[in-house]
Amino acid sequence: MSKIPYRFYLSEEQMPKQWYNLRADMPEQPDPMLNPATLKPIEEKDLYPIFCKELAHQEMDFETAYIDIPEEIQEMYRIYRPSPLIRAYNLEKELDTPAKIYYKFEGNNTSGSHKLNSAIAQAYYAKKQGLTSLTTETGAGQWGTALSEACAYFGIPLTVYMVKCSYEQKPYRKAVMQTFDANVVPSPSNTTEVGRKILSENPETTGSLGCAISEAVEKATTTEGCRYVLGSVLNQVLLHQSIIGLEAKTAMELLGEYPDTVIGCAGGGSNLGGLIAPFMRDKLVDKKNIRFIAVEPASCPSLTRGKYAYDFCDTGRVTPMARMYTLGCGFIPSANHAGGLRYHGMSPILSKLYHDGYMEAVAYEQTKVFEAAKLFAKVETILPAPESSHAIRCAIDEALKCKETGEEKTILFGLTGTGYFDMTAYSAFNEGKMTDYIPTDEDLQKAFDMLPKI
Amino acid sequence: MSKIPYRFYLSEEQMPKQWYNLRADMPEQPDPMLNPATLKPIEEKDLYPIFCKELAHQEMDFETAYIDIPEEIQEMYRIYRPSPLIRAYNLEKELDTPAKIYYKFEGNNTSGSHKLNSAIAQAYYAKKQGLTSLTTETGAGQWGTALSEACAYFGIPLTVYMVKCSYEQKPYRKAVMQTFDANVVPSPSNTTEVGRKILSENPETTGSLGCAISEAVEKATTTEGCRYVLGSVLNQVLLHQSIIGLEAKTAMELLGEYPDTVIGCAGGGSNLGGLIAPFMRDKLVDKKNIRFIAVEPASCPSLTRGKYAYDFCDTGRVTPMARMYTLGCGFIPSANHAGGLRYHGMSPILSKLYHDGYMEAVAYEQTKVFEAAKLFAKVETILPAPESSHAIRCAIDEALKCKETGEEKTILFGLTGTGYFDMTAYSAFNEGKMTDYIPTDEDLQKAFDMLPKI
Repeated sequence: MSKIPYRFYLSEEQMPKQWYNLRADMPEQPDPMLNPATLKPIEEKDLYPIFCKELAHQEMDFETAYIDIPEEIQEMYRIYRPSPLIRAYNLEKELDTPAKIYYKFEGNNTSGSHKLNSAIAQAYYAKKQGLTSLTTETGAGQWGTALSEACAYFGIPLTVYMVKCSYEQKPYRKAVMQTFDANVVPSPSNTTEVGRKILSENPETTGSLGCAISEAVEKATTTEGCRYVLGSVLNQVLLHQSIIGLEAKTAMELLGEYPDTVIGCAGGGSNLGGLIAPFMRDKLVDKKNIRFIAVEPASCPSLTRGKYAYDFCDTGRVTPMARMYTLGCGFIPSANHAGGLRYHGMSPILSKLYHDGYMEAVAYEQTKVFEAAKLFAKVETILPAPESSHAIRCAIDEALKCKETGEEKTILFGLTGTGYFDMTAYSAFNEGKMTDYIPTDEDLQKAFDMLPKI
Repeated sequence: MSKIPYRFYLSEEQMPKQWYNLRADMPEQPDPMLNPATLKPIEEKDLYPIFCKELAHQEMDFETAYIDIPEEIQEMYRIYRPSPLIRAYNLEKELDTPAKIYYKFEGNNTSGSHKLNSAIAQAYYAKKQGLTSLTTETGAGQWGTALSEACAYFGIPLTVYMVKCSYEQKPYRKAVMQTFDANVVPSPSNTTEVGRKILSENPETTGSLGCAISEAVEKATTTEGCRYVLGSVLNQVLLHQSIIGLEAKTAMELLGEYPDTVIGCAGGGSNLGGLIAPFMRDKLVDKKNIRFIAVEPASCPSLTRGKYAYDFCDTGRVTPMARMYTLGCGFIPSANHAGGLRYHGMSPILSKLYHDGYMEAVAYEQTKVFEAAKLFAKVETILPAPESSHAIRCAIDEALKCKETGEEKTILFGLTGTGYFDMTAYSAFNEGKMTDYIPTDEDLQKAFDMLPKI
């Protein structure tokens, strides 16, 4: 290829036919999930009341490296994939950096983010098992939108517990989900026991992702033919999201490129885990020299300031416990913070890789993130989601380091989505009204004190 | 190619290097624009106070069939183009039609619509001429957003007169433009003489596109180094938008396909004119048998119920007069109607083609349009803009006719944009609160009575 194009798309034939399960190649496995009642490791069948069987199996599968993507899922992937691998020529020029910057853009679908990749898989397996409804939670709304789309496509009814502050601040997100016929409930709600309990203790609460998870899980486990699905954190989600990294790697190979540094934003880890998966294999198995950087908000810094400990995945403490980097399931991030990445924990797979030194992490304040977002929008003509903009900030900083050192590094980052539903935050930034929030050590200690004692 | 893929992208090398100027191949030309004071045909130099020189030249160029796209514009096109040609397999299946349905999707850029194609060209030529600022108007906001992006990219300050009801109902659209550093002013405003006049006559007015045009033109012609740019109606805009049709035609040829019917929504005609241009050439020059259908809202039916007459392009009557299908420049469409396509007139090129029998037109009520939009979103996983959904409605109806007759027609329609900023309208539809508005014959007669008497 003479000149690398701005946008590079794989053909349908070049699209991955299998997901990649990074666990199969990890030198050490993440610690097992525990049953909170017995403190014994969870078995696959223990998950059947929560997840449909195939997903429970994927959740516990630490051995199969490559898993066939069912034809029906591939079919839907083809409607909106492959996503483009974009060479950020304009950003490079603007920064005057010798670095080459690439990004894998997952925002060109109606859900506006990468979340659709796993939503389709989860809705498909549920439908195949003959389930009659699903529940989930959503914070900023990307996951709920993606799952609404997938459920409408496969014809399975969905209830979305939407964190109350988002429900109120993002009526348009709600309207998109309703357009796809989802039943959207503000959380905490009085439709569940855990919701009623939280409301009675704190009637003014604006909700949290952890609390919405509790409600969705309770509803699923107490409703006939219903299961729960989750858009991040879980092993199965990282498996499905490996499509991002697999496509990116194939595309870079076809362009004769390979990244020195791979950067992704990290809330629960769905995008980062999917993006890095095949590249991390190269590091673990083929000993390639490649850096991975997880970027999180300074307001919810689970990797950079959290503890590597067993914790619940939800505020209501109804889920199994996982060992992960966590701020404590009682940690509720400031409503001041824009967009997603507000989850208290981090994918156990990513937590383990970080703990074992295979990955770095940095945290940024949101005003610095929006500065990068605005610059990026102007030169690359994509209005990025606040979540994605964390990765942009880091990629810019890495490229500027290259400018200082003169190194011609190749940087790949994940642009997970678009910011159309985040204009309130952009307005605040444009008008100079955006502020930063960093939890104090005391804030964190208070949440750590509530970690389960095991 | 064995099986036609869902999404087909041209490579960078296959992208058009020239725009196509349909006027060069029309058997009869549209009537000339007239100077309203002298009623004499406008000459190129008469347009210099309004448009930059190169654009004034393009506006009046009825002879050059193919015009080179400057490298700088091609460069920016490559950032977000080519747009995909999508085979609507799922929609075909849902409708159980023997028809093959294709759509050219122009919504995968931050402006969310095809408008960026002309915005880039206009900002580029203005910058090249050394102009120091631009003005424009915007209704639903797509054009303003597109031009804000283009102006940010080329570094030229922009003032956008935004129809007041949109300014108030669509704060997020405004915020996107401001993110790209545009100065957004609600119209009518007291920053212009015409705005002050309209406000003094009707202080409660929610504005109109025609009125915003008047303000933007006045501001441009009374400010040093400033010119006006327009997102539709004009010949130059249709020229730039021919990139849509050229890409679509090349893509279909590479797939071994050719449309029997080409369908596009029509407000001022920018998308429709661009989409059909090279196919209309085939009809006019090569006598190909191909149908063209313009789809407009029943609430603003310029082709189906308007008059073919000389009229002003703006409410304030400051622009040259053009002969076109028009409802009269005094016609203000019901605020009840969602989204764009609210312009009183229609591109003179398209008006002439329609008048001479080369094109058909239909009008739909908005509830029927949103029905189609919702069905489309569910099966094709793209949330369409209300404007674009007019074309979807028509394509569905044409495909259903094929089902009745058993004809395996190939239908191509233009999906101009996404509906993320139209969720208020979607909500109204979801909640059964959307109503239709059709102007009565008396309403139209009242507006016709105000047409210039020439």
